[in-house]
Amino acid sequence: MVLSRALRIFEAFTAEQPRLTLSQLSRRAGLPLTTTHRLVHELAAWGALERDDEGRYRIGLRLWEVAALAPRGLGLREHAMPYLEDLYEATHQNVQLAVLDGTEALYLERLSARGAVGVVSRVGGRLPLHATGVGLALLAHSDPALQERVLAEPLTRFTPQTVTSPRELRRLLAEVRRTGVAISDRLLDPLALSIAAPILTPAGVAAALSVVVPSTESPAPYIPAVLTASRGASRSLGWRPPASPR
Amino acid sequence: MVLSRALRIFEAFTAEQPRLTLSQLSRRAGLPLTTTHRLVHELAAWGALERDDEGRYRIGLRLWEVAALAPRGLGLREHAMPYLEDLYEATHQNVQLAVLDGTEALYLERLSARGAVGVVSRVGGRLPLHATGVGLALLAHSDPALQERVLAEPLTRFTPQTVTSPRELRRLLAEVRRTGVAISDRLLDPLALSIAAPILTPAGVAAALSVVVPSTESPAPYIPAVLTASRGASRSLGWRPPASPR
Repeated sequence: MVLSRALRIFEAFTAEQPRLTLSQLSRRAGLPLTTTHRLVHELAAWGALERDDEGRYRIGLRLWEVAALAPRGLGLREHAMPYLEDLYEATHQNVQLAVLDGTEALYLERLSARGAVGVVSRVGGRLPLHATGVGLALLAHSDPALQERVLAEPLTRFTPQTVTSPRELRRLLAEVRRTGVAISDRLLDPLALSIAAPILTPAGVAAALSVVVPSTESPAPYIPAVLTASRGASRSLGWRPPASPR
Repeated sequence: MVLSRALRIFEAFTAEQPRLTLSQLSRRAGLPLTTTHRLVHELAAWGALERDDEGRYRIGLRLWEVAALAPRGLGLREHAMPYLEDLYEATHQNVQLAVLDGTEALYLERLSARGAVGVVSRVGGRLPLHATGVGLALLAHSDPALQERVLAEPLTRFTPQTVTSPRELRRLLAEVRRTGVAISDRLLDPLALSIAAPILTPAGVAAALSVVVPSTESPAPYIPAVLTASRGASRSLGWRPPASPR
């Protein structure tokens, strides 16, 4: 009960409003002001929250430090990072790393060249699977039950190119599995094209990485680089390519 | 009470042991097994913890996602990242970003070239101020009360080069302020040399960035790059250089 209330305080913070007053926290968490005050005080004493100069609260560094131990978060990032950096150096575009969480892609890392096309994603942010390169790569290689769940949900339209028909999405996922690469050509953003591939482990898909370029570019020159980086990261996690027929 | 117990469960996880069984959690948090079980269950239901295939618990992605909203964590990283990337491309070594937390440097980001010298730091990890480049840059520009606190504590020796005399450290900090750059020449690691500079805001020092190279190299060619990157990151946070005398 007390714990679930404290977790509701965490939930009150958003990327749009990462700093909140006590009364904003109380309202957003749906808790009485006195309860909020007591919980916030205890969380701040531990370092899960911090108070800024204007008396507003924000998520504290101590919580970030604990969360950095999440094996599916920064642990995975550590493994994938050298390959992301190679990809970044080879392309000088946006390079991203995301994992599957629920029915969304959660972004763990992004490297962006200064002049690169603006991207919608944010480290710690989420985007839908059916409209992003990393999302399609994750979905195509995830278990069939999850695929059916996503196909059964309404597929939000973001641009005229977004795939909103389950049938067409099914076809697209089969193509991703066949080619090993997922291309989101303006599916989410009319100005951006994303080329993605899964990071595999012996237990299945762990993450996906992508390069995001302006939609005026051709994806072709990026595909070998994305595949090379994703295979390298997969190998570092114990994955081995299937033996080729002789 | 319940909340402080839940926070003790968070504290049980370490970089060395990011996955723990229920009985390990109970022992490390100093809580009865039944209490641990109940709290872990509630934390896992929310996503603050996750259970792996072998029944061990780990920090969950949902907690990482909330923690990513910490303005002093990934928020600061977002601002500094383009400058870190420029520095990485210019040097192809290890590039790091750290903030001051208590009397330690907490590492927010690291970019490492594949062939770069091994570094002791880890994203989400802490290192002492007096023996690291970022630590010296942070300490030299932090408020005098904190400096006195660090100078009053015993200064741990890591290598024959570590500065363990308060008097010598005071002299080193004055030099860092005078030159704008902090050099840790094998102060922490006999094989590594770190060149660091502070990221300033109108309110004071927010972070520090560094390049870590093999100790056989000269720091000279890296200094202008580190200063340029740190000034760029400082400008993006509203800092302006003091007007030069005419």
